[in-house]
Amino acid sequence: MSIDNFTGHISQRFDDELDAVKGRLTEMGGIVEQQVGDAIAALLNADVALAERVVKKDKSINKLEVAIDEDCALILARRQPAARDLRFVLSIIKTTTDLERIGDEADKMATQAISLSEEGKAPHGYVEIRHIGQHVSRMLSEALDCFVRQDVELALKVAQEDKAVDVEYGSALRAMMTYMMEDPRSITRVMSIMWSLRALERIGDHARNIAEHVIYMVQGDDVRHLGLKKMAEKVKQR
Amino acid sequence: MSIDNFTGHISQRFDDELDAVKGRLTEMGGIVEQQVGDAIAALLNADVALAERVVKKDKSINKLEVAIDEDCALILARRQPAARDLRFVLSIIKTTTDLERIGDEADKMATQAISLSEEGKAPHGYVEIRHIGQHVSRMLSEALDCFVRQDVELALKVAQEDKAVDVEYGSALRAMMTYMMEDPRSITRVMSIMWSLRALERIGDHARNIAEHVIYMVQGDDVRHLGLKKMAEKVKQR
Repeated sequence: MSIDNFTGHISQRFDDELDAVKGRLTEMGGIVEQQVGDAIAALLNADVALAERVVKKDKSINKLEVAIDEDCALILARRQPAARDLRFVLSIIKTTTDLERIGDEADKMATQAISLSEEGKAPHGYVEIRHIGQHVSRMLSEALDCFVRQDVELALKVAQEDKAVDVEYGSALRAMMTYMMEDPRSITRVMSIMWSLRALERIGDHARNIAEHVIYMVQGDDVRHLGLKKMAEKVKQR
Repeated sequence: MSIDNFTGHISQRFDDELDAVKGRLTEMGGIVEQQVGDAIAALLNADVALAERVVKKDKSINKLEVAIDEDCALILARRQPAARDLRFVLSIIKTTTDLERIGDEADKMATQAISLSEEGKAPHGYVEIRHIGQHVSRMLSEALDCFVRQDVELALKVAQEDKAVDVEYGSALRAMMTYMMEDPRSITRVMSIMWSLRALERIGDHARNIAEHVIYMVQGDDVRHLGLKKMAEKVKQR
C-alpha cells in the first residue's frame, strides 16, 4: 500500500508500529507456550537437560517483556492513540505481565523436574500433571489465538475452561495429600508434584487474564472479576 | 492556586486528575495492606470471623483495580501525557495488577485460616508465619510509602529485602516438610501453613514489583529482571 499524503504516511507508520508490537507479543507468546510444553515434558520424562534449557530460556522472556513495554510506552508518547488503538496498547501492557508470569511458572516446574530427578521419581501424580498440563496448554494456545484473531467468543471459552481446570486442580491436590499420608517417605517428591500442579493452575489463571484483555481490547468492556455469566452476556451483547 | 489563562487552567485540571488517581491508588494500597495484616492475624489467632471479613472485602479491591485502570485509560486518551507524567500513568497501570494479586494472596491466606479452624490448629508453623508475615507486611508498607514519596532509595531497599524473605521462606518450607514426615496425621494442617507461607512469599514479590515500578516512574529506568547489583547502580547513578 502506498499513500502519498503526509497524514496517510504518518498513519501508515503508526499501523506498522502497532503491527510490529503485535508481532513481538506473538513471538513472546510462542516462546512462553514452548516453555510450558517443555516444562511439562521435562517433568513427565524426567528430562533434566530439557528442564535446564527451560530455566536458561526464561531470561529471554524477561527481556521481551521489558522490550515490548518500552515499545508500548514509545507508541503512547509519540502517537497518542485513542479508542481501540489505545485499548490495544493497554491490553498489550497487561498481557506482557501475564506472559512473563507464565514463563516464571514454567521455570518453577522445570526446577521441580530437576529436583525430582535428584530425589527419585514421585510414586504418584504424573497422570494428573499430564491431564491438567494438556488442558492448560490448550487454554494458553487458545488465549494466544484469540489475541491474534481478536476473537472474543474464543476468549470467553478460555475463561470458562479456567473454571474446569480449577476443579481438576482441587481434586488432584486432594489425591496428592492422600498419597503423602499413606507413604510419608514420599512427601518430598509428592510436594514437587504439588508445586508443579500449582504452577499449572496459575498458568490457567494467566491464560484467562489474557483472554479477558482481548475482550477489553475488542469491545472496550473490562470483564475482569465479572463472573462467567455476566462475561458471557457482555460478549453476546455486542 | 488560581491560574487565569486557559492553558494554566487545563494543566491544573490535569494535575488534579493525576492527584486523584494517585489518591485512589493510595486508598487501594491501604485496603490491601489492611487485608494482609488481617489475614495474618486471622491465621495466628484462629479468628474465623476476621478471615471471613477478609474474603468478603476482596471484592472491593477488585472494583478499585478496574476503576483505577479506567481512570488511567481516560487520562491517556484525554491528556496524552508525555515523559514523567506518562511513566506515572503506566506505573499505576502495572501497580494495580500487583495490588490486586496481593489482595488475592490475602484472600487465600484467609481461606486457609478458615480451613485450619475446621481441621484443628496446625502443630507447627505459626512462628514462621508471624516472622515472615511481619517482614512482608513491612515490605508492603515501604513499597506503598516509596510510591507516595517517589523515594527510589527506599524502593531499592524493598527489592533487597525480597531476597531475604525468599531465604526465610525456603528454610520455613524445609521445616514444614520435616514436621509432615515426623507426624503424617498433621499433613493436611501443615499444608495449610505451607500454602500461607507461599502466599506471603508471593506478596513479597509483588511488593518488590511495586518498588520497581516506582524506580521506573521516577528515573525512567526499567529495572525489572536486572538483579540487585545493577539495580543499585541505576539508583545511585541518577
